[in-house]
Amino acid sequence: MRVGIIGLGIMGAPMARNLLRAGHPLTVHTRTRARAAGLLADGAAWADSPAALAAAVDAVVTMLPDTPAVEAVMAGPDGVLAGARAELLAIDMSTIDPAAARALAERAAETGVALLDAPVSGGEQGAIAGTLSIMVGGAAAAFDRAGPLFAALGKRVTYMGGPGQGQMTKLVNQVVGAGTLAAVAEGVLLAAGAGLDPAAVVEAVGGGAAASWMLAEQAPRMQRRDFAPGFMVRLQQKDLRLALASAERLGVPLPLTAVVQLLFTAVEARGGGELGTQAILTALEALAKRSG
Amino acid sequence: MRVGIIGLGIMGAPMARNLLRAGHPLTVHTRTRARAAGLLADGAAWADSPAALAAAVDAVVTMLPDTPAVEAVMAGPDGVLAGARAELLAIDMSTIDPAAARALAERAAETGVALLDAPVSGGEQGAIAGTLSIMVGGAAAAFDRAGPLFAALGKRVTYMGGPGQGQMTKLVNQVVGAGTLAAVAEGVLLAAGAGLDPAAVVEAVGGGAAASWMLAEQAPRMQRRDFAPGFMVRLQQKDLRLALASAERLGVPLPLTAVVQLLFTAVEARGGGELGTQAILTALEALAKRSG
Repeated sequence: MRVGIIGLGIMGAPMARNLLRAGHPLTVHTRTRARAAGLLADGAAWADSPAALAAAVDAVVTMLPDTPAVEAVMAGPDGVLAGARAELLAIDMSTIDPAAARALAERAAETGVALLDAPVSGGEQGAIAGTLSIMVGGAAAAFDRAGPLFAALGKRVTYMGGPGQGQMTKLVNQVVGAGTLAAVAEGVLLAAGAGLDPAAVVEAVGGGAAASWMLAEQAPRMQRRDFAPGFMVRLQQKDLRLALASAERLGVPLPLTAVVQLLFTAVEARGGGELGTQAILTALEALAKRSG
Repeated sequence: MRVGIIGLGIMGAPMARNLLRAGHPLTVHTRTRARAAGLLADGAAWADSPAALAAAVDAVVTMLPDTPAVEAVMAGPDGVLAGARAELLAIDMSTIDPAAARALAERAAETGVALLDAPVSGGEQGAIAGTLSIMVGGAAAAFDRAGPLFAALGKRVTYMGGPGQGQMTKLVNQVVGAGTLAAVAEGVLLAAGAGLDPAAVVEAVGGGAAASWMLAEQAPRMQRRDFAPGFMVRLQQKDLRLALASAERLGVPLPLTAVVQLLFTAVEARGGGELGTQAILTALEALAKRSG
């Protein structure tokens, strides 16, 4: 399948490489052409615009930072839909607003393009290793057509329903993940305040009902004050904002998520937007300094 | 080692059986003698009071519902310390206030008794299977003496430091576990509001950074509205109250835990104190009904 990919950032670049490695003729486009140099050297073709790229391939993958970027690349004047033939398969793997994803899928359908929303979890490591979790919304027939591409990019690929349901699932993932991380941070802070041995606490608590990926991976980073990303606070905030907005539209209360979002806002206010999400610990510490 | 156990509730009774099975001559005492019938039939001896029990054994294990119960059984008029010879090893495996555990350890030391605080996680299933996680505070020499008893009761046994540090670790465990559970509940509610397939959500989200024991075990129960305990809301609340009190003494802010405690209070207010902790979902649902 001739594939095009738009967006060669931290996630998009290694995903493009995995598509190339799986034997798909690849065309690329990204705002900063220099980022494409390695892929072009290895045989990828360049397209000057999303429209030109769409005209040259059977399937387009987009991996972009936010909702406005995806809307511009898909539906803008020189966008994918402007260049697409009918039967084009479009797969947006960015994390964006589910309502926007649904609206874009409708617009795409009007021009005969099947648009899947297929956000991922697993981060840069998962993108490099080709082990992303992929949560897919859109027409079931399009999901089937996309199978070989998903197989090159991810490990756990789940069909979640109609347009937008992939994005909704990603937001559920972010709500659960961020809340779990915050719970771990409170535990780490309480343990430190009580003078408990950091490694012994993770060992003692990690064997039972409090066990989580966040406890195993992020508690030790918090304990040694390693706040390097990983997943940046700024991007986590974008996702939590989308989750809270969707929840409000659906009439679903998320009180913990609201507190977590507030704590991340405090991290950002202190200049920590580019830190890893485990820096939520520092927001709790700042509260302690004021109240104690 | 001749062992006595005081408290034959949901946790204490199977723990007593495991001590007996491991070959320790066992003496038991509990408020309601009828609960001891099975153990007495299998060869355990009965003592009429904690003091009488303490006089007859080398080590006493207590497994009681709360701080006042442990204080009465240890330091009351007919309590363990009243009957103890010097060199008695006392092991309180209840979950109680760390400050109370420290005070009791001091009083015990005055009579030559080494008192360990050794609360557990793993619930009834872990107690039956002998696979509890045990978090131990107290003198290191006493911890070493208790090794054979812990081996009969648990799998992951961690020495956490001086008196009270086992209890502090248990409170950290409860903070992390309850917060993780609440994060899962928000995810389950958002997924339901969005009309996502329940099993597909757990599958899609459970493979990455949002993975936890609570997601794997409790999300499916929430989704099929199975609110049977497991671990009762009422007991979780007791532990969170202890955690919040300890945190306040230490000047550690736990904003998420405060929200979680509030949600459990709402479950209790609606008559759900005897439900399993996964019923926290119903408190979120009640918020939705009022605001929506």
